[in-house]
Order: sequence, then structure tokens, then C-alpha cells
Amino acid sequence: MNLQFYKHAYKKLEPLRARACSVRTGRDAARERRHGRVSGGPSSLSSRAPAYPARAQGKAPPGDRPRVASPGAAGKGLGPEPLEGLRSSAGSKGAVLCGDRDAALAVQAFRLALIQLHVSAVKSDNLQRACGLVREASAKGAKVVALPECFNSPYGTQYFKEYAEKIPGESTQKLSEVAKECNIYLIGGSIPEEDGGKLYNTCTVFGPDGAMLAKHRKVHLFDINVPGKIQFKESETLSPGNSFSMFDTPYCKVGLGICYDMRFAEMAQIYGQKGCQLLIYPGAFNLTTGPAHWELLQRGRAVDNQVYVATISPARDEKASYVAWGHSTVVNPWGEVIAKAGAEETVVYTDIDLKKLAEIRQQIPILSQKRCDLYGVEMKK
Amino acid sequence: MNLQFYKHAYKKLEPLRARACSVRTGRDAARERRHGRVSGGPSSLSSRAPAYPARAQGKAPPGDRPRVASPGAAGKGLGPEPLEGLRSSAGSKGAVLCGDRDAALAVQAFRLALIQLHVSAVKSDNLQRACGLVREASAKGAKVVALPECFNSPYGTQYFKEYAEKIPGESTQKLSEVAKECNIYLIGGSIPEEDGGKLYNTCTVFGPDGAMLAKHRKVHLFDINVPGKIQFKESETLSPGNSFSMFDTPYCKVGLGICYDMRFAEMAQIYGQKGCQLLIYPGAFNLTTGPAHWELLQRGRAVDNQVYVATISPARDEKASYVAWGHSTVVNPWGEVIAKAGAEETVVYTDIDLKKLAEIRQQIPILSQKRCDLYGVEMKK
Repeated sequence: MNLQFYKHAYKKLEPLRARACSVRTGRDAARERRHGRVSGGPSSLSSRAPAYPARAQGKAPPGDRPRVASPGAAGKGLGPEPLEGLRSSAGSKGAVLCGDRDAALAVQAFRLALIQLHVSAVKSDNLQRACGLVREASAKGAKVVALPECFNSPYGTQYFKEYAEKIPGESTQKLSEVAKECNIYLIGGSIPEEDGGKLYNTCTVFGPDGAMLAKHRKVHLFDINVPGKIQFKESETLSPGNSFSMFDTPYCKVGLGICYDMRFAEMAQIYGQKGCQLLIYPGAFNLTTGPAHWELLQRGRAVDNQVYVATISPARDEKASYVAWGHSTVVNPWGEVIAKAGAEETVVYTDIDLKKLAEIRQQIPILSQKRCDLYGVEMKK
Repeated sequence: MNLQFYKHAYKKLEPLRARACSVRTGRDAARERRHGRVSGGPSSLSSRAPAYPARAQGKAPPGDRPRVASPGAAGKGLGPEPLEGLRSSAGSKGAVLCGDRDAALAVQAFRLALIQLHVSAVKSDNLQRACGLVREASAKGAKVVALPECFNSPYGTQYFKEYAEKIPGESTQKLSEVAKECNIYLIGGSIPEEDGGKLYNTCTVFGPDGAMLAKHRKVHLFDINVPGKIQFKESETLSPGNSFSMFDTPYCKVGLGICYDMRFAEMAQIYGQKGCQLLIYPGAFNLTTGPAHWELLQRGRAVDNQVYVATISPARDEKASYVAWGHSTVVNPWGEVIAKAGAEETVVYTDIDLKKLAEIRQQIPILSQKRCDLYGVEMKK
């Protein structure tokens, strides 16, 4: 029955993809067919990446084998019910590749965990507790785990220089190690990065073999001024990134943004066109923009692009100079909030159901109904 | 003080517009500077339009003079407070033009009325009651009045051919007359239109002198299938429009879509880039998509493009073959719902505050922060 579903979905989705407005180039397609390669822009993978274990081309590492959580390992508290009934037809056959052409063969569901970390001023403490919660999430069956924006440093222009690291460096080395130890995909929130005398707000992603799969530098810097409420100017100290960042998993392709990036619809639209089915935004909205726009933006991106959207905030710390909103959230492609944290430190678990995504894309087929003769969202580089 | 505000706003907004991703051409700009001309695509203005009164070029008709509602004429029930304190600095000087270059001189606020009409199977009755409610809205100070999708006909593929008219025709003639009589801008919801043997779902807009300012044929036809919930296929009988449709008022520039058009973010993005500050979507969502997406889509378009968004639904009729959601709504550029009807026939009044729009665009300046080097939304024709 599962095979039939995938065959059917493939038959339905393939022409859709062909008809949809596309920014794909021949080179993109070739690159995406090679498993485990970063498909983001040129700067998505640092030239220093070889410091992490090299990833074998064309061969899925052991950690890529879809693993279905056993009932005994199911989450407690915020953890969802076990993934029973969502087994992949390919699960028993081992690793499944997840390039665009293979989307129909991808696994049907996987567990995502969002770590809403309480971030202190002590970097070593932040790293230790983050890694501990990653291990906990893995033990509860999560195959993709994500940390919040600025997870190793307080958030604020006055902190970025002091806490900045090269990549690779202390923090990303630990992320690589814990991803490998837990056999998971780890989206490392973000850290202040120093490179060539400039500072960036940077997210790194590590695969189950510890290799760095993507490096996303925040593209849209957070410069806003709502009088009497919130004033912030990241551009005082940070430089912006200049590329999109995507990576493949055996489950689906993932697009990355950091916080304020979420306000720019075009980035999500391009990720959608490139085949991403999950968008992940580590982010720290505040007590003004949080209640106004945090959930709305996620739901909008999800419905407009028919993708899952996940955001990961630091826990709220009323004593911090910048008080984060919290409320890490997962939204499904119908626009429904399917998981949401409060303000305190916690781990949010969700089962991402790619069958549901395929169904919604068939029911309201906006992706194939776009009027590419009238408009298009174009990637410039 | 008002003059200072506008000077300040102009100074802030002009460089923003220049920097923002633009699809504007030289020809567009020239066209938009000429007051009262349709700035939509080639088919936005029918060749038959001269049947309505011709509009003098370069001269604002009497109805363009900003009129501030007197307290006595303020709405009752759903009507807002009178527009006191929102007088335009230009109001005493008579007509104010509203091309893009003149945005800083536009009036500061105006009253919008949405007529959530109960639509019956009797066309003459629909027309009569629609015109009656337009007169009522005008008497309460509305300067821009909008009717719902399919306001003269039941909504359904089985009805479109029977109720279809040429444009100009009976229904649009009545719209022209009542717009002139009331000295208002009238967005005529939509009607089934017949032209050259094809049927369209078409919105016409009339100015205070009775001239047709825009004709928008629904671009994205409503073909969806949510099993067990809602199945509809407009393309069985209708043909799609092929152009964007905008029009100028003395208050702001307005972009038009019909119902399902609202699901396509690109259309709203292009309207925003073209200088629209208000998007109007006559639409009839249903009891499945209404609760799920009606408000979300409006709030998303409003926040992403920092514009006002208004939707106008027919009143809900549980006996109809297609049961409309109702809940005509107005959302401000912060994403807040500022007016919303229930399901029954009613008129919704709102004061559209363009000063607030300018403030929000300064506070969270996403329009000038877009990364035009990385992406762009392009109009293809």
C-alpha cells in the first residue's frame, strides 16, 4: 500500500514540479541528485569544512538509514506519540536518497525536535546543556534536531564580538561531535562567527557522520525601530550573508533562514521552488514583534509554499538585555500550528508527515496553478 | 504639523521606493503620473469603456475632492467613529493627485465600506439592494465602497452562463450610475462576464464621475478538491484573465484580485512594488477554506507587503449550492484585523489610515531591506 501511495504521489507531483515556476538550473539538478551535497549558494559550505569528517559521495552514511522510534523511546511530556503507523515502505531496505527526483521514494515521516534552550552568559555552560538536550531528543526518537538563534551567546550587538568564533571552532566542533554521536541531523541554531575581520550571525548544520552540510549566514540583518517598544541594529556590528542555504536529508530537503530572514517572503518562495519541504528558522523575536508576527509569518510561509515551517527561539529570560519571545513552533502546510512551546526552556517534538504535505499539494494545487506567464520569483545568484 | 509629517514621510519613503526591488518601467511611471488612468495590464480597460463617461485627463473630477465625514454622518452599528483628527492638510485645497510621485501629498485617511450582500437568484433584486447599500455607505461617509464576488448572481459553474453579461451591460451600467450619484469610488465586486464566446469572473471599478477605471478578470481560477469537504472547478466554464489591475484614487493606489487570486503571493508582491497601499479582494471562500485560510492569507499579504488588505464576501446563505464563508475583513499593515463582519448581510466601515502605514514602513523597513541582489519578484508582462 505504501508503495502504491508513493507511485501515485510521484505521478502526481512530477508534472507539478515541471510546471511550477522554477529557478532550477541544469547544474542545480545535477548537484541535487548527488546525495548529501549542500545545495545552497557558494558560501554555504566553508572552505574550512574539511576539518570535519569528509562525507563519502554517493554512499549514504549509516546514520541516514531511516530509523523509526520504538514505542519505548517515545517522548514524555512534550514528546509526541511514537511513530507507529508511519513506517516508511523503504525503511526495511536501508538508506533512501532524497534528491528532488527521488522525493517520491523518501520516507513518509520523521521526528523533529526543537530545543528551546535557556541561554546564559557562560558559553561553556550553553554548549554543555545544548549537547545534553540534543542527546535527550535523540533518545526520544528525533532524527532532526534544531537549536535556537545565538545558542552559545547572549543576543545583543555588545556580545557578538566577545563570543564570536571561527568556523570550525569550539562550538561547531561540539555540534559535529554530538550529531555523529547521536546519529542525527543537527541544525546548530546560530553563533556569532568571525571571518576575515567581519562578524556574522551563522547557522551550521551537521549530518549523522559529523560532516558539515550547510553554513548559513543571516542574510537580512535585524535593523528595526518601533518607538517606545524595540530598537535594534544588528548592522552596527554584523555583516550579512549573501546566499541561500539548503541541505538534503533522507526525509526531505530543508531550507534555512535566521530570524529576520523569515520576514522576507522571497527567500521562502525560492526554497519552495527548489524542492524544500521544511523551512527552519532559528530566531529570537521579542515581546513586541513576537506576539504580533512570530506565528503569523510562519503560518503564512507554510500556506503560501505548502511546506512545514519550524522556528526555534531561546527560552525567555526577563533579565537579559534582549528578552526573547520564546514559543518555538511547528506549522504544517495547511497553516496549522501543530506544536508550540511556552516561554520557558523545553524541547518540542513533532512528527513531520510528508504524506500529509503531498495530500495538501494535491487538494489545493497552487504550486501547479501559478501563472508563470505573468510573474515569477527569481534567484539572482 | 501635517505638512511636516508629509515632508518627513516623503523624505523617508522616496529613497525606499528607489531602492526597493522594482518592476516599474519608464512607461509605467509616465502612465501612473497621469491621474485617473488605469495602470493595470492591457486588458484592464475594455475597449468598450467609452460607453461610460469619459474622464478628463489631468483634471480631477469633483468627486476626487477629499471629503471628511461629518460627525453626524458617522456610521452606526458597525460604522467607525467619525474621521475627526484625521483631516488632510491638502483637504482644504481641493483635489489631490495620487500618482506614485505624489504619494507624500495624498490625503491621510479615508473611509472604506465593504458591502457583505446577501445574494439571491434574482439578478434585479441583487442589483437594487446592492445600489441601496452603496447609497447607505456613501451617506455614512465612505469614499471607497466595495461589493462582493459574484454580487449579481449565485456563485456556481451552473449559474455563470445564465447570469453572464457583456461589459458594459445592465449591471455595470448601474454601478457606473450609482458611483457617480454618490460621488465615490466603487469596486463592483465581480460578475460573470461574457466576451467573444468566453466567460470570465470580472471585477469593474468606477470613479466618482461614473467612468470605468479598471476591469479585472480573475487570473487564478478556483480549481480545488479537498475530499469530503469541498470540490470546485471554475475552469469548467470560466476562462482566466491575463493581467494585473490597479487604479488610482486621491487617497492611495489600489490593487485588485478576486478570491482565489489571494492565494498567490506574487500578485500582491507586484502590487506592493507598484506602489499600491490597499489591496482589495472580493471573494467567496467556503466553510472549509474560510476558517482555515481566509484571515491568514489577508494578514500575510498585509504584513509581507505592508499594505492594507480588504476582502468582501457575499453573506452566508446556508441554502445555496455554494455556501460562502462571509466574514468580510480589513487588515492593517501591522497584520491586525481592524474590522470584520459576521456571516450575515451587513456593511463594514473602516477608516484607512495612511499615516499609520507610513509609520509601520519606517519602523520595520523590510521594503528597503530586501536583498535585490539575491532575489526579485518579476512581472512578466
